[in-house]
Amino acid sequence: MKGLVTTDKTLNGKIDFDAIKNLKFDERGLIPAIAQDVDTGAVLMLAYMNEESIKKTLTEKKACYFSRSRQELWTKGLTSGHIQDVQGLYYDCDADAILVLVKQTGVACHTGNYSCFFNPMMDAPEEYR
Amino acid sequence: MKGLVTTDKTLNGKIDFDAIKNLKFDERGLIPAIAQDVDTGAVLMLAYMNEESIKKTLTEKKACYFSRSRQELWTKGLTSGHIQDVQGLYYDCDADAILVLVKQTGVACHTGNYSCFFNPMMDAPEEYR
Repeated sequence: MKGLVTTDKTLNGKIDFDAIKNLKFDERGLIPAIAQDVDTGAVLMLAYMNEESIKKTLTEKKACYFSRSRQELWTKGLTSGHIQDVQGLYYDCDADAILVLVKQTGVACHTGNYSCFFNPMMDAPEEYR
Repeated sequence: MKGLVTTDKTLNGKIDFDAIKNLKFDERGLIPAIAQDVDTGAVLMLAYMNEESIKKTLTEKKACYFSRSRQELWTKGLTSGHIQDVQGLYYDCDADAILVLVKQTGVACHTGNYSCFFNPMMDAPEEYR
């Protein structure tokens, strides 16, 4: 989908592993990572990455997070098959959040929902569903 | 834009303030909130909300965050004019993250960039820009 990324900055196809040292990890060594589907534009989930999982994500081009409950690296879909093929990875102005653009196989949520964000506190109008 | 929300759950136009007590706030009383532009689908920013800022957001329909640096409520755009009109608000399967669907006036980022996510570590293909 057009317009998901709005920046003139480009690496001309290189992967910038060095940028990891710009990132502000929290006291647990983690940084929040938003996964967005490049085909639908839907925000799929918010998870956390550590330095190692970012390197693995950039190397293998499959989204790899750090599981806070299991305290280990977690390549999304490794057991379920619901992998996320990484199409791009950006960090924000404060260097304390990451946006991962992915092609989602199957569903993103462990509940079986396509996106993890399925509980309304205020309904969005029909035109956004 | 179609397809940003994918759930059959609906409140039939009501606002569910009670759901706030389902949310898992961190040790600072905060929960991460992703702001997404309903017109372009772009992820604009990741900020944090506390209980009070969620109530204010749902009441006034303008995105209100909690500023970690200033330690105070922060209605986005109150000084810059770059307000976010809230179109919908959802929380995720684990109740530890929020998605705020907004109509963005002007730009979301204090740097003047439309989205805060403008630093590539891995470029997205042209078709997503």
